[in-house]
Formats: sequence, C-alpha cells, structure tokens
Amino acid sequence: MSAPKGFLFSAVEAAIKKPGRKDLALIYSESKAVISGMFTTNSIKAAPVMIDMKRIKSGIGQAIIVNSGNANACTGKQGIADALEITDMIAKALKLKNSMVYICSTGVIGTTMPMERIRAKIPELLKNLGKSTIDDLANAIMTTDTFPKNITKRIKINGKTITISAVCKGAGMICPNMATMLCFIMTDANIDKSALDKALKSAVQKSFNKITIDGDMSTNDTVLTMANGMAGNSLIKLNSKEFNKFANAVSDITYELSKLIVKDGEGATKIVEIGVINAKSDIDAKRGAFAVANSLLVKTAIYGNDANWGRIMAAIGYSGITIKEEKTDIYLNGLKIVKNGMGTGKDKEANEKLKGKEIKIIVDLKLGNKNAKVLTCDLSEEYVKINAEYRT
Amino acid sequence: MSAPKGFLFSAVEAAIKKPGRKDLALIYSESKAVISGMFTTNSIKAAPVMIDMKRIKSGIGQAIIVNSGNANACTGKQGIADALEITDMIAKALKLKNSMVYICSTGVIGTTMPMERIRAKIPELLKNLGKSTIDDLANAIMTTDTFPKNITKRIKINGKTITISAVCKGAGMICPNMATMLCFIMTDANIDKSALDKALKSAVQKSFNKITIDGDMSTNDTVLTMANGMAGNSLIKLNSKEFNKFANAVSDITYELSKLIVKDGEGATKIVEIGVINAKSDIDAKRGAFAVANSLLVKTAIYGNDANWGRIMAAIGYSGITIKEEKTDIYLNGLKIVKNGMGTGKDKEANEKLKGKEIKIIVDLKLGNKNAKVLTCDLSEEYVKINAEYRT
Repeated sequence: MSAPKGFLFSAVEAAIKKPGRKDLALIYSESKAVISGMFTTNSIKAAPVMIDMKRIKSGIGQAIIVNSGNANACTGKQGIADALEITDMIAKALKLKNSMVYICSTGVIGTTMPMERIRAKIPELLKNLGKSTIDDLANAIMTTDTFPKNITKRIKINGKTITISAVCKGAGMICPNMATMLCFIMTDANIDKSALDKALKSAVQKSFNKITIDGDMSTNDTVLTMANGMAGNSLIKLNSKEFNKFANAVSDITYELSKLIVKDGEGATKIVEIGVINAKSDIDAKRGAFAVANSLLVKTAIYGNDANWGRIMAAIGYSGITIKEEKTDIYLNGLKIVKNGMGTGKDKEANEKLKGKEIKIIVDLKLGNKNAKVLTCDLSEEYVKINAEYRT
Repeated sequence: MSAPKGFLFSAVEAAIKKPGRKDLALIYSESKAVISGMFTTNSIKAAPVMIDMKRIKSGIGQAIIVNSGNANACTGKQGIADALEITDMIAKALKLKNSMVYICSTGVIGTTMPMERIRAKIPELLKNLGKSTIDDLANAIMTTDTFPKNITKRIKINGKTITISAVCKGAGMICPNMATMLCFIMTDANIDKSALDKALKSAVQKSFNKITIDGDMSTNDTVLTMANGMAGNSLIKLNSKEFNKFANAVSDITYELSKLIVKDGEGATKIVEIGVINAKSDIDAKRGAFAVANSLLVKTAIYGNDANWGRIMAAIGYSGITIKEEKTDIYLNGLKIVKNGMGTGKDKEANEKLKGKEIKIIVDLKLGNKNAKVLTCDLSEEYVKINAEYRT
C-alpha cells in the first residue's frame, strides 16, 4: 500500500556504527503537520529526546530525522549540540523553522555522534527525498531487530480515504513504557491536536506499554505521530464517531506492531501472552501480569517447553498483589493446569502445548473483576549471546 | 572445626527427586534450644513454612528435618498433612512435643511429597543421628548448587568458647528477601530469645537480603537459628558488649555465606558487587543498586567483558530514584569510567578489568550521603540452560 499523501522518505548509509547498511533516514511532510509524541520515562533521557520534548509543545512539525547505530545518550552538552546541528542543517535545506524538525536516535549509549560522517551524508539524504520507500525507513531504524516493522491501514472518514502508516523498531530492552523503541506514525488525516494526542496515548497504553522483553527501559524511547490533513476530510474532533474510528485504527496498528516487536525480541522463540483475570483491582491485575512476564524462571521454563507452573505461582506470590493461593487457577493455551492453587496433573499435556510458537497463560485470581494482559517472549541462550556481544 | 556442643546431624538418601544422593537430613539439639526464624515474604508460602511460622511463636525448638528435591509448595491440604506427618514421626521417635520439631523443604513446586519413600527412610535417618557431619547436612540440602556451603566460627564470651556453625543452600532465584534459600545457624551460646532475634534480623538484613541473582523470590525461603546454651556462658542479653560480639560473628558468617551463594548463582562466572553511594536517601541507594543488579543488560554485558556503562546509567535512570545525570560518576574496580554523566574514554581498560572474577561497580550520585551495596552475579547462557531443563 502506498504511504499517506504528502509524506516523503529518504534513507542513506552514513556508517554510523559500521558500514554496510542504511542508518540515517528522513521523514518529510509536504505541508505542516499536527504532531503528538510520547517519550521515555527514564530519568536519563538522550539528547534528541530532550530536544523533541521541547519542540513538541508547539504541536506542529514537518520533518523527522532519525539514525540507528548511536543513541546520542549520556553525551552531555556535546550531544545536544550535535543533535541541534543536525536538525539545523535539515531545517535550512528544507526551508523550515528549526523547531519544525524533530530528531530520534537509537543504538549504543555513551559515544558522541560521528558528526563528520553524518554531515557528509546530509546532502545525499536530502537529494534522495522521495526516492526511498517506507520499507527503506523501517530498515534504516533497525538495531538488533531481525526484520523491519511497518504497517499501513486505510479507513474511510466522511467519504474520504485516510491512510495511516507506522514504522517501528524494537528488540532488546522492550519493557513497560516503550523501552528502546522508536515508532513513527504518519497519516494524511485532518485531525485536531487534542484528538491526535488522545488517540496516540490510548493506542500506546494498549500496546507498547503492555509489552516486556527483559524489564529494562531505555533512554531513547519515542513515539511520534504526524497528521498533515492532506486527505482533505473534515476535521476529526475529540470524542466524535469519526474520532473513535480513527483512534481504533491507530490502536490496531500499534497492537500489531507490538506483536511484531515481541516476536522479534532478542533470542525469542515464542510469543507469550500473560493474562491476569478477576483480580481485585486494575493495579493488581497489571502488576501480577508483569511479574509473571518478567520472571526469568517463567521465561526460561517456557523456552524449555516445561509447564513449570510453580514458577508462575511463585511470581504471582512475590508480586505483592492480593491473592488467595487456594482460589488461584492457571490455564495454558486453554488447558487448566492449576485448580484452586494445586496442579491438575496435566503437566505432560501442557508441555506438549508449550511446543507451539504462541503461548497464552491465564491466571484466574477469582477475587474481583479486573483484568490485564501483557505480551512478552521466552528467554533463550541466544538473548545472552546477543547482549554479551552487542557493542563488539 | 567441630560443630557446636550438643548438635547431632544425620543425612540419608530418600530418592525424593531422583536417587544417587543424600536428600533428607535431620538436625537435633540434645537440649532444648532458643530458636529464631525469618521466612519468605512471598504471599504463596510452602506448607513447611506455614507450619514453622506457627511453631516458632513458642521461641523454642529441638529438631529440624529438611529435604531437597521437593518444595512441598502449592500442594494444598495434602502438603500440610504430609509435613505434619513427617514432624510427628520425628517427634515421636525423639520423644519430643510435636511443636519442638521444625521442617524445611526445597525443590520443585507443585508436586506432593513422595511420602512412601520418606516414611521408609525415617528410621534410618534417626538411627544415623550423630554419625553424619555438618558437611553431610550441607550436601543434603543442595538443589542446583554446585558446592556445599557451610561456615563455622568460634568466639570467646566471658572466657567461654562459643561455636557458631551455619549451613545454607542458594543458587537459582536468589534475590532480595532471601529467595529460594535455606539457612540453618546452630550455636551452643547461652542467649536470650530477644537477643537471638535481633542478631538474626540484623545479620539477614546485611547479607541474604542484599543479594540478587535473577529477581525472583521463592515460596520456601527460611533461615532458622537454634541456640542451646551448652557452651555454658552467662546469658547474652540484648545490647550488651557480649551481644555485639555475638551479633557481629553471626553477621560475618551470613555475609560469607551470601558471597558463596552469589558465587554459585546458576551459570554465574563472576561475583559482582554494586554500590550506590551519596544518594539522597537510603531507599534511593537501595533501589538504585537493585535496579543495576537486576538489569539483564548489565549482567550480560559483564558476562561478555563489555564495560557498557550506558546500561548502568539506563538502569539507574529507570529505577525511579532521584539522580542528576550530569553529576553521576561510575567506577569499575576503582577505574573511573563515567565522570559527570559522560564516559571518560577508558572503556578498553575497563573491559580488561571485567576479565577478573570479582567485579566492583560503584555509582556515585553526589546528591547526599546514603549508601547501599548489593551482591549479584553475571548472566550466562548456562543460566538459561539450567533453568530451561530444571524439572527434566
């Protein structure tokens, strides 16, 4: 499917970490776009995050420059100066105000940007604008990702066709609150700023904030959404029927992207959905689900096709939520493996079910009516290998 | 060194999980002992933990029966009945009140105890009493531990020699609050109950509660201390000079045992001490140190000899504590690798230091005067392998 109207892309090779792949990309909207963003909650924020968080207060933007290979985090004043220099170069060439250009970086922390190589490549990046595809963009932002991630959807609003395209990168540190992930959502919808903000926030809550790979959270996580209005629909306002249609489409896209991120978790061999149901409170449901999803012992057992439900019980137990052991049931892909806190003796059958690639675990607390769902992956030797060798 | 006066040991093979090693042991004091205990904070507690927590209210005890291979957790009423039957058999044979016998189990969760094999072995266990050594006991309580852990120390109190011996098992799930560990401290000291409680609590705070391997916490953790007074010293009371001497000796022992547990963390190749210093509050120091110690990305980088300090910064950043990036310094075995939030360019030298077996990381926040220290280990492929295959 073609990209939303008015969006142009470019991707070039700047050999930021090493040569051999495109690692510097530009997104440009031919007209001013309404922009919304969400950023890492890590107290240590990369230079580009700090710049974007300021600029986004204006609510408008027209270009995003993004690189992989270097996170420009923990780089002090030099990091800020470098990021500003890059956005200034882009703004000047595109005849935009500096504040209309956003910047994102992902990669190794603590090394200053290789500015000589980046400066040298910006003319080519600009010249190439419109010649790259959204796939090129998705490829250029990858780090340890093993496949590019992008989704395009179309919806009709008041007879006009609206296109929404999103690209993201994940892998590694994926965790609550969008750790080390970048996501760019581009749409030609004509939408009010507050409506765009709400659609993004609700989509992220239901998707990127519900995935976890290793419990770590990065300095660079950013989701940016640009809506340039070029589809020509009448303005989508908050809480209208049209808003709901638009917001649902964005949520669907981010949920699909979340699944792709988990599938591509470092060393992952399985996607695992953890549901905690009938908890006393929302917080209990969420905390319980994350405790199970982040337990290394649960993740390694799933990797080893071992329905070791005792580890699930132990994780729920130490999560600090209200539980009654003698009430708790656990299901594995629909099979009841724990009833009222005790094994049902179906471990062999359960081990067989674990050999599949998509695992669903449901913990039924039978104490209330609150539910939560978290996506994660299993933990393999490969995860350790990848992360022990990441910088080398 | 010989064991404290009046303590007898026995260890036999009951083939609880599989044959080939001793897995059922008994500790017996020839005279009534003052007893103190600390137990898992997991909401899901194994049957033996529930029984001991009731019995310890009396403050006295004379025997502890312990098995490895089966945790007797998530086993419902049957689990309680089994544990009571075992302690009753021991009490009857030793002519003790049932409440004088304590029980501990470690191993797989969710399988009922193999009572036929245990019942059949109890006569041999009793007959053997006094013929086994403290080393046999340390061996019998091992699960995935690769070496037995026991330490004996002697101190003089008012001219009398007091012996303190402790055995423990660790490995796996070791984490804040003593996860999956059992520890038995035996002494012939004559000590007041409240003094023994305080000595134990303070020792555990400074040792077992400061270690973490994978962030999980078990259903079975127990530390029990018995003091039978057979050294004949005048009674040690709370906050006396003698109390301090005794409490320090217990703390030294538990700290040494903690180091052995971390050294024997599943798949561990290095002991890692994480210090967070000059934090604004005690809670900040502790939370920051645990965030670094539990970060899989930090642990895999250490395993890979990669001084990837960005991951340490990121972990401190997402821990939720008060930090100022531009003030933070990081030291690796004394080498300053981060100064005021930025790398000092000594990564190669730091990588060399990581090749050692004992790693010390200090994060200096320069915001206050509170410090915390946590012991952990690195994360290797071997950890995944062990835990993917634990039950099989």
